[in-house]
Amino acid sequence: MTIRVAIAGARGRMGSEAVKAVTKKEGMELVAALDYKHVGDSLAELEMFSPNLNVPIFTNLTQLIEDTKPDVLIDLTNPQSVYEHTKVALLHNVRPVVGTTGFTDEQLNELKTLAENSKVGCIIAPNFAIGAILMMKFAKEAAKYLPDVEIIELHHDRKLDAPSGTGLKTAQLIAEVRSERKQGHPNEKETIDGARGAEFEGMRIHSVRLPGLVAHQEVLFGGDGQLLTIRHDSYNRESFMGGVLYCVEAVMTIENLVYGLENLI
Amino acid sequence: MTIRVAIAGARGRMGSEAVKAVTKKEGMELVAALDYKHVGDSLAELEMFSPNLNVPIFTNLTQLIEDTKPDVLIDLTNPQSVYEHTKVALLHNVRPVVGTTGFTDEQLNELKTLAENSKVGCIIAPNFAIGAILMMKFAKEAAKYLPDVEIIELHHDRKLDAPSGTGLKTAQLIAEVRSERKQGHPNEKETIDGARGAEFEGMRIHSVRLPGLVAHQEVLFGGDGQLLTIRHDSYNRESFMGGVLYCVEAVMTIENLVYGLENLI
Amino acid sequence: MTIRVAIAGARGRMGSEAVKAVTKKEGMELVAALDYKHVGDSLAELEMFSPNLNVPIFTNLTQLIEDTKPDVLIDLTNPQSVYEHTKVALLHNVRPVVGTTGFTDEQLNELKTLAENSKVGCIIAPNFAIGAILMMKFAKEAAKYLPDVEIIELHHDRKLDAPSGTGLKTAQLIAEVRSERKQGHPNEKETIDGARGAEFEGMRIHSVRLPGLVAHQEVLFGGDGQLLTIRHDSYNRESFMGGVLYCVEAVMTIENLVYGLENLI
Amino acid sequence: MTIRVAIAGARGRMGSEAVKAVTKKEGMELVAALDYKHVGDSLAELEMFSPNLNVPIFTNLTQLIEDTKPDVLIDLTNPQSVYEHTKVALLHNVRPVVGTTGFTDEQLNELKTLAENSKVGCIIAPNFAIGAILMMKFAKEAAKYLPDVEIIELHHDRKLDAPSGTGLKTAQLIAEVRSERKQGHPNEKETIDGARGAEFEGMRIHSVRLPGLVAHQEVLFGGDGQLLTIRHDSYNRESFMGGVLYCVEAVMTIENLVYGLENLI
Repeated sequence: MTIRVAIAGARGRMGSEAVKAVTKKEGMELVAALDYKHVGDSLAELEMFSPNLNVPIFTNLTQLIEDTKPDVLIDLTNPQSVYEHTKVALLHNVRPVVGTTGFTDEQLNELKTLAENSKVGCIIAPNFAIGAILMMKFAKEAAKYLPDVEIIELHHDRKLDAPSGTGLKTAQLIAEVRSERKQGHPNEKETIDGARGAEFEGMRIHSVRLPGLVAHQEVLFGGDGQLLTIRHDSYNRESFMGGVLYCVEAVMTIENLVYGLENLI
Repeated sequence: MTIRVAIAGARGRMGSEAVKAVTKKEGMELVAALDYKHVGDSLAELEMFSPNLNVPIFTNLTQLIEDTKPDVLIDLTNPQSVYEHTKVALLHNVRPVVGTTGFTDEQLNELKTLAENSKVGCIIAPNFAIGAILMMKFAKEAAKYLPDVEIIELHHDRKLDAPSGTGLKTAQLIAEVRSERKQGHPNEKETIDGARGAEFEGMRIHSVRLPGLVAHQEVLFGGDGQLLTIRHDSYNRESFMGGVLYCVEAVMTIENLVYGLENLI
Repeated sequence: MTIRVAIAGARGRMGSEAVKAVTKKEGMELVAALDYKHVGDSLAELEMFSPNLNVPIFTNLTQLIEDTKPDVLIDLTNPQSVYEHTKVALLHNVRPVVGTTGFTDEQLNELKTLAENSKVGCIIAPNFAIGAILMMKFAKEAAKYLPDVEIIELHHDRKLDAPSGTGLKTAQLIAEVRSERKQGHPNEKETIDGARGAEFEGMRIHSVRLPGLVAHQEVLFGGDGQLLTIRHDSYNRESFMGGVLYCVEAVMTIENLVYGLENLI
Repeated sequence: MTIRVAIAGARGRMGSEAVKAVTKKEGMELVAALDYKHVGDSLAELEMFSPNLNVPIFTNLTQLIEDTKPDVLIDLTNPQSVYEHTKVALLHNVRPVVGTTGFTDEQLNELKTLAENSKVGCIIAPNFAIGAILMMKFAKEAAKYLPDVEIIELHHDRKLDAPSGTGLKTAQLIAEVRSERKQGHPNEKETIDGARGAEFEGMRIHSVRLPGLVAHQEVLFGGDGQLLTIRHDSYNRESFMGGVLYCVEAVMTIENLVYGLENLI
């Protein structure tokens, strides 16, 4: 069976990658695109896509669903529109795969109830990079047995905040399974401030920023005479597409709302 | 509650490390050593141990159990004696933690039945390095989502066989969860034989041998625009002791025989 | 002083990156482009460049030199035209920075003589990635002190040949400074063919091919109780531009022909 | 020709390794040991050495030299005695290889003059790990071309100071060849203090401390689209012995005092 897919946000950076990924993927068919304004009758008319891409563009989601009967709606738009899209999709038995965050708790609860009652699968995933999700999952698991952990995250030097969101999230997940413990020597001393990195519940997080780098992280677990390292390198935006396609397939098999790829795999 | 521990094979390389590890460990007490011949009345008399180590040595396991009432018997001897030891221990409600392989299927089945019927925990673990076990477990899990895998194992240059046992076992575990797939370009060509490594069900295993190295392995998973790496470094024999102590605690909580640390964690 | 730069091959993959790099670089000015056919009067007319890029395009190099008086000609065209370009440039005291190979020995010798006699600097560099050049240079140096070496090169899985050109070249450079030595245990045994990689003068080269990877290499040197690793990661084509700009500056300071970036740094 | 070697400090941690290393090394002969007190007539009497090690022990260096005529004196004692030893050795045309620091500038100058005048080689090396020396040397060289650098040093968690001496020394060497430059985004912000590590002339140094680790360091150089990494792993004390033996050979070929292995290789 071919999965019929519609995409909201097809002209965005992530969206245009998703258009390409779905089009190339065996077992999926791109049947429609949703845009917030009229930009043409089909994706073929837009310079960024192949002139053979005869995929109709809609500005109204209900209309899109009636005309093209998608199984799944991939939504890569923004927090402003995504709640409404998801709700409409669920009400029409179309399964949403959403890549934006920014739902209020109230909205999330409403969508959750909606999905469960109608038994329509729905996936909301702030991070689609399967490798990064696996890294975090394994890190949380490893910390149960090897509780001495340090995190090194490495990004390009245009990044503003340190530590990175993924670095911090990894530390939080680890903190859920181990009791707080001050690591390092009790009397250790920084001869230059900051050498030992950022402290989070006794763990240390180090942020490297260099030109050339993209997005990388390694989690190091030390034990007697051994070291376990889990590392993820993200080289470009394509790294998210595997996760998007995985979710399109997975959402067809579930009957509730799942938040976070880590709860699926 | 303090766990009372006896050790068989205390004078061996692994055994002597275990003596030290148990002695230092809070919540455990070393109450006896089992030796195949009379080497003295207590470990304190042996030059390799501290002269304060007043731990009695027995040559008869039944006697040892009656006199010192251990909760757990750590057995780091050899395939010849380990089956008999394990059986005797189970019959006396002492929980075995065994670090040798070499049981016949018949023996294993008998011990399994014995453990289950008496509800006495028993752990048989060919590899006690928790980090290595986690690496294999995570590799198997990751291959479900990122099926393109290569393994690089690195050892000192006195090692005879390539690939290593752990490298091969990792490949076998991965093969259980993915269908065979030839990796690399269909038309790829080795201009020097062996460049692409050993093939196992389409995966590639590379064996590095250099002086200075100890025992290291990394498993690489490639996906669109990303790489996930799981690496284990074993720097010395101490790396096994964490696993031994973990098993001593774990065996107190189970009521059957578990073969392989990977089935515990 | 601002260095006046002309570029041959501006519409190519490397050339268009070079246009951007020179334009952004302080101390350099892009004064002309050389093309083999008439494609417009200035780069501003080509869709691939900014409409503000008022850089005149020439089809005749002599004309270009007379009209725009460049100090340096960056040539990123092909083996067919590059010899003629380089010769003309040298005859007019314009310093060539050439990124193509494919000169005959006779041509190289002629250009070398030409450069020396007129004391005009000229750089011919088959590989502009400074990091990769440094890796090879350091590898050659390290092998004098730590002669046990293995090379692991990792590329995307669309690459056809194994080992890679850079991997092989690194091994050749190392072979120049150490006597052939069979590494590993004299009696080592491959239980699966190819596990120990490709052999080159006793060294081993391992080729990893995975989707997601770009172009990476590490050179490992083992010694008593230690390991020295030199690694280069190339994430995208930009990695060559630093080398191009470096050569533009360096060519102003030399008075002969240098072949290979490794002989400059 | 066999090099005749005497060792001062043979019973120390480093010294006893040196005894083993020299004894095993082809082309070297261990002819005497110097001790500050009488501990026996030969090393064979000491439990820590083989009973076949018939190497005479002296408490007086002049006597030792007269009786056993060594070519080289390896001195692994302490700052208190090392100056006197080195001076006596040089005066008797014995070439010192010294592994301790702690000379005053005055003492160093005196020894330097002594060596030069008598044309007797002398090597004083605070760090004998050839791999670590090469790492620092290459790092200094690479920083000329790729000036954006971060250092990650990783040690066992019993280490008190952060950053490590080697980490700091590497940064100092790099600072000699590049102008101070603030790295990272000008507006970057630490959401947890210390995330970006210790700052040294605009470079960042990160100190990881975990059980299981020994002594490791990597130096990362970022450039457009690329990363160059130089890493050294020291797994145990043996890593120093290659450097000691290298110095014994090298000291025979020089006629002055060299301070620091980096100035020899």
